[in-house]
Amino acid sequence: MQIESYKIEEQNQQLAASQQRKFDFVKEQFSNSEAIIQKLINFQIAIPSWALGTGGTRFGRFSGSGEPRSLEEKIEDVGLLHALNKSSGAISLHIPWDIPQNYQAIKALAAQHGLRFDAVNSNTFQDQPDQKQSYKFGSLQNVDKAVRKQAIDHNIEVIKHGIELGSEALTVWLADGSNFPGQLNFRKAFQNTLESLQEIYAALPENWKVFVEYKAFEPNFYSTTVADWGQSLLYATKLGPKAYTLVDLGHHLPNANIEQIVSLLLMEGKLGGFHFNDSKYADDDLTTGSIRPYQLFLIFNELVEGMDAMGMDHATGLGWMIDASHNVKDPLEDLLQSVEAIMIAYAQALLVDRKALNEAQAVSDVVRCQEILQNVFRTDVRALVAEARMRAGGAADPLALYRSLKVRENLIGERGYKTVATGL
Amino acid sequence: MQIESYKIEEQNQQLAASQQRKFDFVKEQFSNSEAIIQKLINFQIAIPSWALGTGGTRFGRFSGSGEPRSLEEKIEDVGLLHALNKSSGAISLHIPWDIPQNYQAIKALAAQHGLRFDAVNSNTFQDQPDQKQSYKFGSLQNVDKAVRKQAIDHNIEVIKHGIELGSEALTVWLADGSNFPGQLNFRKAFQNTLESLQEIYAALPENWKVFVEYKAFEPNFYSTTVADWGQSLLYATKLGPKAYTLVDLGHHLPNANIEQIVSLLLMEGKLGGFHFNDSKYADDDLTTGSIRPYQLFLIFNELVEGMDAMGMDHATGLGWMIDASHNVKDPLEDLLQSVEAIMIAYAQALLVDRKALNEAQAVSDVVRCQEILQNVFRTDVRALVAEARMRAGGAADPLALYRSLKVRENLIGERGYKTVATGL
Amino acid sequence: MQIESYKIEEQNQQLAASQQRKFDFVKEQFSNSEAIIQKLINFQIAIPSWALGTGGTRFGRFSGSGEPRSLEEKIEDVGLLHALNKSSGAISLHIPWDIPQNYQAIKALAAQHGLRFDAVNSNTFQDQPDQKQSYKFGSLQNVDKAVRKQAIDHNIEVIKHGIELGSEALTVWLADGSNFPGQLNFRKAFQNTLESLQEIYAALPENWKVFVEYKAFEPNFYSTTVADWGQSLLYATKLGPKAYTLVDLGHHLPNANIEQIVSLLLMEGKLGGFHFNDSKYADDDLTTGSIRPYQLFLIFNELVEGMDAMGMDHATGLGWMIDASHNVKDPLEDLLQSVEAIMIAYAQALLVDRKALNEAQAVSDVVRCQEILQNVFRTDVRALVAEARMRAGGAADPLALYRSLKVRENLIGERGYKTVATGL
Amino acid sequence: MQIESYKIEEQNQQLAASQQRKFDFVKEQFSNSEAIIQKLINFQIAIPSWALGTGGTRFGRFSGSGEPRSLEEKIEDVGLLHALNKSSGAISLHIPWDIPQNYQAIKALAAQHGLRFDAVNSNTFQDQPDQKQSYKFGSLQNVDKAVRKQAIDHNIEVIKHGIELGSEALTVWLADGSNFPGQLNFRKAFQNTLESLQEIYAALPENWKVFVEYKAFEPNFYSTTVADWGQSLLYATKLGPKAYTLVDLGHHLPNANIEQIVSLLLMEGKLGGFHFNDSKYADDDLTTGSIRPYQLFLIFNELVEGMDAMGMDHATGLGWMIDASHNVKDPLEDLLQSVEAIMIAYAQALLVDRKALNEAQAVSDVVRCQEILQNVFRTDVRALVAEARMRAGGAADPLALYRSLKVRENLIGERGYKTVATGL
Repeated sequence: MQIESYKIEEQNQQLAASQQRKFDFVKEQFSNSEAIIQKLINFQIAIPSWALGTGGTRFGRFSGSGEPRSLEEKIEDVGLLHALNKSSGAISLHIPWDIPQNYQAIKALAAQHGLRFDAVNSNTFQDQPDQKQSYKFGSLQNVDKAVRKQAIDHNIEVIKHGIELGSEALTVWLADGSNFPGQLNFRKAFQNTLESLQEIYAALPENWKVFVEYKAFEPNFYSTTVADWGQSLLYATKLGPKAYTLVDLGHHLPNANIEQIVSLLLMEGKLGGFHFNDSKYADDDLTTGSIRPYQLFLIFNELVEGMDAMGMDHATGLGWMIDASHNVKDPLEDLLQSVEAIMIAYAQALLVDRKALNEAQAVSDVVRCQEILQNVFRTDVRALVAEARMRAGGAADPLALYRSLKVRENLIGERGYKTVATGL
Repeated sequence: MQIESYKIEEQNQQLAASQQRKFDFVKEQFSNSEAIIQKLINFQIAIPSWALGTGGTRFGRFSGSGEPRSLEEKIEDVGLLHALNKSSGAISLHIPWDIPQNYQAIKALAAQHGLRFDAVNSNTFQDQPDQKQSYKFGSLQNVDKAVRKQAIDHNIEVIKHGIELGSEALTVWLADGSNFPGQLNFRKAFQNTLESLQEIYAALPENWKVFVEYKAFEPNFYSTTVADWGQSLLYATKLGPKAYTLVDLGHHLPNANIEQIVSLLLMEGKLGGFHFNDSKYADDDLTTGSIRPYQLFLIFNELVEGMDAMGMDHATGLGWMIDASHNVKDPLEDLLQSVEAIMIAYAQALLVDRKALNEAQAVSDVVRCQEILQNVFRTDVRALVAEARMRAGGAADPLALYRSLKVRENLIGERGYKTVATGL
Repeated sequence: MQIESYKIEEQNQQLAASQQRKFDFVKEQFSNSEAIIQKLINFQIAIPSWALGTGGTRFGRFSGSGEPRSLEEKIEDVGLLHALNKSSGAISLHIPWDIPQNYQAIKALAAQHGLRFDAVNSNTFQDQPDQKQSYKFGSLQNVDKAVRKQAIDHNIEVIKHGIELGSEALTVWLADGSNFPGQLNFRKAFQNTLESLQEIYAALPENWKVFVEYKAFEPNFYSTTVADWGQSLLYATKLGPKAYTLVDLGHHLPNANIEQIVSLLLMEGKLGGFHFNDSKYADDDLTTGSIRPYQLFLIFNELVEGMDAMGMDHATGLGWMIDASHNVKDPLEDLLQSVEAIMIAYAQALLVDRKALNEAQAVSDVVRCQEILQNVFRTDVRALVAEARMRAGGAADPLALYRSLKVRENLIGERGYKTVATGL
Repeated sequence: MQIESYKIEEQNQQLAASQQRKFDFVKEQFSNSEAIIQKLINFQIAIPSWALGTGGTRFGRFSGSGEPRSLEEKIEDVGLLHALNKSSGAISLHIPWDIPQNYQAIKALAAQHGLRFDAVNSNTFQDQPDQKQSYKFGSLQNVDKAVRKQAIDHNIEVIKHGIELGSEALTVWLADGSNFPGQLNFRKAFQNTLESLQEIYAALPENWKVFVEYKAFEPNFYSTTVADWGQSLLYATKLGPKAYTLVDLGHHLPNANIEQIVSLLLMEGKLGGFHFNDSKYADDDLTTGSIRPYQLFLIFNELVEGMDAMGMDHATGLGWMIDASHNVKDPLEDLLQSVEAIMIAYAQALLVDRKALNEAQAVSDVVRCQEILQNVFRTDVRALVAEARMRAGGAADPLALYRSLKVRENLIGERGYKTVATGL
């Protein structure tokens, strides 16, 4: 299924007056609306291929319908999102779930939907049917050199796929760790992992980056070998200038101040990428912005401030990606909600009066600092985001259009009711 | 495979001198060793049928080998454990994974292994292939009456299976809850659940109990409809005298004082059962005693003190069960470790000098209170536990014997290398 | 110092045009603005007397200036807040810090500022200089009857002060608990506390309520004798119809779903009062709405829905109070920010489209449920709140007026630079 | 008061037979007992001067009696501990609470008690009466250069005191951080702090170390400027070879794997020191080993393994110190309990069969790894610790002797009933 642009036009015209009134209202509150709109237009969030199907937990999965059965259909799904919101112009593939049969055809299909290929993802947290060695006790950390070798080779293969598709980054998320005290020698696990990463690093093309993702726990429940930003930064520093830390919002211990971590990683020149989602308890992988929207805004506040200070381009300076699991929602609707929440947080961060904030900070006027941040967070910026989206050719209200066009029903018609996409 | 008793005898004779020396040493430190040994002999921990296979996480499962392929083989596995440690004399079944074809045959098989049937467990957290209604949005809480009806009927069917097997309790663990703010009306979810439970309650035989298990989160990540002991107690109180709260050690928010909860539930006469495991981060379902052994002891300290105060028999007063998931260990070895940890904690709790503790508490001598508890926790009581086990016909060192008898290798020979048991 | 009403008029006229434009904009988005404005006008949040001075931590306190040195000056401070925002029309006293010398004079002073006396608070978490017994090992739970007696008598005395002032509720926050395993017998501590509370309950006038506050931890660090809502509800139920649970937002274990607790307590008819603040790590006592504003909204969403369902009046059905500690801000500015955040959350909760939400819940349309809540949360309702405030005689922008009138500087002039108010 | 050595002799003789029997029993279980005993004798844990008085919380303090009123009396107190356990042979001073009037006299007094001066501690978390600048908004991070200067100068002054006393390390614990989003620019706070530390670093004598302590939260409740080991390591690395990270057990987010942090810091050559205590909820500062003794053992397991691997001497390689707050116990009794718990954990870690553990790890035999650790943890090593203590001249049972000698009663007699020592 494809969304014809006249459908978008129709909705936009229907909502034009209301949107204009709201946009005017927000515009007159800030002087820099036009510059912000351009930044919003430029900002693209990659959609991971595995988030297009219904996710699950260890207790089970309640499958959805009309889910993509192939890489081509996954690209089609992201194309639908991008047609609607013009902010999802990239797809992030996962190997081995998404190995292309024909690179050129896949690239052409993506281009047709206006999509580029974001970071490619390796998988050493599961055993594949034809695999010689098992990752039961870890991959890059494994005490067995043969297992490490297999995991290294797999990552290098992933890079090769990425090169063919025009991707420029590898994301390494390691489930490696231990479930019980004594199981691992932490230092040896670190050293093995580092050496393995060094071999992968050596296979990176000149213009590539590698993102070392960290996670506090799960699927290992005693220790994780890249468990926090400090460990990730150690790896990235030892690896070299192409290595960066990737922050996934759900991968922290309770109450962690993620915005501070983001700020310090930017300071060190080692923040590489971002996985958006939201959570209340653990790595819940919920819709971005559905639980702690203020935290999301505070993170964007640090990103904008820090990237500007480091002279980084917002759109291209970091890898932006959603990494969520949709257990009870239509995955495409969930992703539309996540992207909307991200754009709102980004817009609000762009609206922060930096000069006033600097001044208030300089005199420790804590009340004023808080007021400055809360002022933009309490402002309704949805019309600003919608304006950017519409100017880029997207829909005034993507979710409403998705529903009125009966996209899911159409996909079910095309793909069938019982479909299970790969995913978490 | 069955463990012939002369094998146990052999090991016991080999270790007899060393065991005697250790037992003498611990015995002389306490005056009531003999009484304690009898209590240890009486104490039996049920093994859940789903813990006999390798577990997994949402990220994957690394299957084990020689795992039970049928209810009969599950009973055989628990029989092996019980032959070794004489403390695993019960099995807890899960419906629909363990529906017996022939009750008499199954009962005879269990009896042959010296096993009784503990609480039966219903499953409304997954959709079964032939199921009409989906539990995607909950079961007993569901806004749709037809779904609730199906879940109620399932629970009543579980009771019927239990009656046939001689079980006397139903454990209801509800995954019901919500993933997003707004998804549920909490009051209506509670009321629906209560009404559903009332229908199930009405189907309980006279001598039966129903255990209402609570869990803070997972698989729902915003709210759970029986989320904590307070909610479980509300349900149990409204249901009536056959309804009790079941405490699973891993089902709490971070840092919860579980021993206090246990004490208060005993006070209210509403503690019904226990699920043992251990955890560091969430519901990690690790080997009991592997992460926080002192907490395990403190819980047993409250259990012993509270049950004695309420005039409850330790062995029969509550339902005792392990509920763990073995992702990287041989499940049978893991269960031997868990049972050992439980017996140690129970033995230590029995050794606490209650009179001295009461006196110290009565004058708020906090230092002395701590010393009294630490004194028994620091005592090596393994020889006491081993003595009880050996007197009951078990092995001096069950894990060592399990390995030297190559039990797993034998099971693989009988059952095959690639086997996947149901489990979490 | 008093704020003359013409000063407020002046500001309001200055901001009138801008406010009108914003109000019109928000008003046209919702049909029930006028009804909501009336509810906002009626809604009053009590200010605790101890929050008017700079707070501190165990590591120290950085005192503020111009802080109130007497009960009279505390009333004056709350009067200033109420003059500005017309939503702080009550004061909550703490005994023994605020024992009035002359009830009539104090009542007259309060009336002059338009203030009533909210719940009175007892203090058994500190030893007073002239006190016979020490609360080192607890008060109402104490193993020593003489200590319990003293604590009971103190609470009864607090009730007497409250009666004289026209208060109608007693808040009992108990620091009672233990720091080490073994220190307490949990059941005896519960029973002692219950018996003590029963004696206090017996002293309550007919129209009074007693609020049993719970807290997960601090100042005791192993167990707390009223540690969670489940325990508080047990006490309240055993005590009788005048006893209720009081929820303080900061008194929970990490990640607790407070909104669900609120909903269930309303269902049980046992929610009595509320202490507002915010926190990231523990009982941080930060400005309400400064860390998790969405959670605050979700709580109000349950309050509004639940109180309406139970037929309770929003303004009088529960005791509403701020309980925060202002370590780095001017306390009065902090309180203005807190009240503003509360009014915004309340306004947003009032705007929720209940009918649409019920319909979406009834069909488990999770995406729509989320959209309905997020829609109001993303709406800028500040003009609605300001409209209500201005109609009630308050200032369009209380914080700005507070600063432009140099209220703190005036108070320093009157009271001196070095002043230390009682507080936490 | 001083404990005459014949009193210790007396007790030791009384307990000699029982101790010998227990020691023989544990000795025969391990081959290397004598080597371990020597290590236990060498191991000394510094006592912080502020832990000799009763601590408190922000809600109050319940003072003890007979507490030290001067630096001399604090040294006397540590001398008492050391006489009893021979493992507390160092004192850690806090400036400005412990500024010596006469260095030589103080050094002589300490020498007389067999004590050396461990790391000296600066204080920039409180304002002192005579202080020009306030630390309300931080010290080394402060936006105001004059405040930073004052804090730097204070630290340099602390070094000077330390030099005079023969200390060789400075511990910098910074309360610096923020209470509200927006209050700080995280990067600038980091940079200011780094520059300030660099100035302090420059003042270190050749043979000195500086320990950069981290803490997740409290007294700041939104961000802390040295919040975790990653940040501390960044500072220590940027500062140079004399700078190290200091780990305080209570300064982590919930569920942190501290033993892994310890191992990695050792790997990086950047672990400098340790603050022992225990906690259940936050920085509870409870008696070491009173809540999570297995975690304490696991940490020592990593310390022993890592220090051996790095060729570090256990006794002198790191700074070992208790940092606890004794709110409901006699501080000296509490410290005796803490030191005992530390010695037990250290002894158990020394008993771990490294060779067997390495072998089990090398084949991922997780069950065996766990058994190896649990085996020593379940062993009663108290007689081993007592043997070391007695050989060094200490008491078989320090706590019992403390009580039977009525040490506290004697101190009250000498110092008075109402005494308040500085402390937290």
